[in-house]
Amino acid sequence: MAYDAPLTKEQILDAAEQALRRYGPDKTSVVDVARALKVSHGTIYRHFASKAELRESVTERWLQQISSPLQHIVQDGDHSATKRLRQWLETLAQTKRKYAVEDPEMFQMYTAVTMEALPSIVNHVDLLVEQVSLIIQQGIKDNEFKQGQPEQIARTLIIATSYFHHPAHAYQWTDPAIDQQFEQVWHMVLASIQAHSS
Amino acid sequence: MAYDAPLTKEQILDAAEQALRRYGPDKTSVVDVARALKVSHGTIYRHFASKAELRESVTERWLQQISSPLQHIVQDGDHSATKRLRQWLETLAQTKRKYAVEDPEMFQMYTAVTMEALPSIVNHVDLLVEQVSLIIQQGIKDNEFKQGQPEQIARTLIIATSYFHHPAHAYQWTDPAIDQQFEQVWHMVLASIQAHSS
Repeated sequence: MAYDAPLTKEQILDAAEQALRRYGPDKTSVVDVARALKVSHGTIYRHFASKAELRESVTERWLQQISSPLQHIVQDGDHSATKRLRQWLETLAQTKRKYAVEDPEMFQMYTAVTMEALPSIVNHVDLLVEQVSLIIQQGIKDNEFKQGQPEQIARTLIIATSYFHHPAHAYQWTDPAIDQQFEQVWHMVLASIQAHSS
Repeated sequence: MAYDAPLTKEQILDAAEQALRRYGPDKTSVVDVARALKVSHGTIYRHFASKAELRESVTERWLQQISSPLQHIVQDGDHSATKRLRQWLETLAQTKRKYAVEDPEMFQMYTAVTMEALPSIVNHVDLLVEQVSLIIQQGIKDNEFKQGQPEQIARTLIIATSYFHHPAHAYQWTDPAIDQQFEQVWHMVLASIQAHSS
């Protein structure tokens, strides 16, 4: 249809996400996506080199729903670094938990992509580390936190809280003790970075 | 054969472990195990109610190879609690890493059993928590560690170090940065429990 506007990447990703939800990651083919958009599969391949790349891009976009709201917490100058760090971690954990229950198909795909350690996941984690670094940096400047390398502290903190945000632990998030466990790990982390009041 | 000694649970577990290694958890049947032992499958069922129970018992026995050496570290009265805690954690992480590489079939089965949160895994984690509790208790008594509830501190510590011992993270253990990351999480954990020198 000659009057059609050219297909955008976003439109392909929308159709791919729908197909992935409907058929699952293993059964969805590029042909399914092309058919939904009424284009040839060649059109899809002009934007995405492979089915794997398409799947990774869908996950990448989905992950932005997780990292974007966290960015607001980083930039919230009204609160102390301690308060923001706590809110950041809690929001990350709760968003993941919510998606695990409410969006199981996409969450399962995200889990698979994570276990394959694909570049989009490495980027996602780097972005999270960067966000936490900024909070830590501010906390050091304000003497709330001890001196140290913000990026290294941030990465350590992300690793030490994996239980609450790494998708492989999703099966443990239904444990009634999860909130109490989060609280205790939070206090452990905080105690290790807080400047001692003199 | 009437002169045969009755089959022990250990013999069944040995045969099951061999079969599981050879055929994998999905393809191994109770009949395979019975055939290897030259008995009827009814004989196996007299000891294990189901294939799942047999698989879980094999994993349980395998896990004792991980927890038993750790028990020696707990009981080593020659070293400080800090030193023992560090050695305990490092041994746990390195043993898991070693098995992930050297015994991939059993490790994969252990991963599957873990993700199903089966009772044997809950027991294994409880045993680890108990071991760490004893070290923490001694550390508090000797004023190396701050006052607190040893069992709660131990569980928090196990959770905060999941990245290094939970099998779902095995794909991250080949990262060249893993030792440095362990070091940093260790220092974070230690800083949070250490008594401040007055």
